Amino acid sequence: MTLDTSIRPPSPEPVHFWFDFISPFGYCASLRIDELAARHGREVCWHPLLIGVTVLKVMGLKPILQTPLKGDYVRHELARYVRRHGVQLARSIDQPPMNPLPAARALAWLLRHAPGQAKAFAQCAYRMHWAQGVDLDQAAVLVDCGAQAGISTDVMQRATTDPEAAALLRAEMDAAMARGVFGSPFFSVDGEPFFGVDKLELVDEWLSRGGW
Amino acid sequence: MTLDTSIRPPSPEPVHFWFDFISPFGYCASLRIDELAARHGREVCWHPLLIGVTVLKVMGLKPILQTPLKGDYVRHELARYVRRHGVQLARSIDQPPMNPLPAARALAWLLRHAPGQAKAFAQCAYRMHWAQGVDLDQAAVLVDCGAQAGISTDVMQRATTDPEAAALLRAEMDAAMARGVFGSPFFSVDGEPFFGVDKLELVDEWLSRGGW
Repeated sequence: MTLDTSIRPPSPEPVHFWFDFISPFGYCASLRIDELAARHGREVCWHPLLIGVTVLKVMGLKPILQTPLKGDYVRHELARYVRRHGVQLARSIDQPPMNPLPAARALAWLLRHAPGQAKAFAQCAYRMHWAQGVDLDQAAVLVDCGAQAGISTDVMQRATTDPEAAALLRAEMDAAMARGVFGSPFFSVDGEPFFGVDKLELVDEWLSRGGW
Repeated sequence: MTLDTSIRPPSPEPVHFWFDFISPFGYCASLRIDELAARHGREVCWHPLLIGVTVLKVMGLKPILQTPLKGDYVRHELARYVRRHGVQLARSIDQPPMNPLPAARALAWLLRHAPGQAKAFAQCAYRMHWAQGVDLDQAAVLVDCGAQAGISTDVMQRATTDPEAAALLRAEMDAAMARGVFGSPFFSVDGEPFFGVDKLELVDEWLSRGGW
């Protein structure tokens, strides 16, 4: 009798990570989440989120930087976080945000049609925007960004022009909100929700202990 | 020559802690902040805050539990926190909040006129409300609460009836907002602001290192 090595335990559910390309706290989280999850044997699935839809329209809030008291606190907190973690930001949180829709739609398209390349695109795009100060609101920039992530021009051109991308992003947003996701960054570990980059230590602990 | 032992280093600035009696996350923080600060040789000064003024009026937000998506997340987060830290709550976050004004005014009065007893009152009142389910909106309850904290009936009757208490609370609120304080719990360590019970680990680290 030989041991059937084809029988292996099922892969654990990936950690889900939602972010908006315009969110600097999402960018900070994006720099840590994969390494953190990998220490627990988990993959991470990156999802686009438009906080202009969740926060402004669905939740009915005003932009956080325009909220009295909270706006100044958030500016201070971001500066403290990037100082502590050594994150380099090429743009200020107070610069007018770019339009994140083209990049979010391209990511939604890649998640469906080129899932093995979606994260590399998102990582490169996020880094280009926040570490290099490049706006991502033009298809040509996204194609170039994809090239830097090793994605063919052909695939990126489809990702940035296929009309299906809008519907795929809407489906991503609907699925996110159905799970209670509203902000950037947001994480889900086996269905357990965590909001904010400050929750990464708790995510780590949850992955270690399986809850409490 | 003898060493002049009367010359001692100046006491470090206390940690400042703002909370609203209606805030369960503030209550959770109140159970940890003094022990945490004491490990660093710090006292804690407790301050009343009315989030109905800061959050609803000044910031222009709606009550958090009535905010789509965020409300459900906050309910979940509180349940997770109390489970993790073994906090017993006698009331639900969804019960209609009591009127925190009488207790907040009494605390503001005690901070001015009986500063050595103010914290004992606040601790007892917070515990009565969240661990025993007692509403604190009647002067008689506050007098009783003060008695449990070792404060004389005479002092508590003045704290709950002196018209100056309203002005003292307004001054506390103005001073808090001038420092950027808006939520419960909120901490300040040597002027460095921290919002939320989740920040206690960072407060601990900041006290250890003196910033970063």
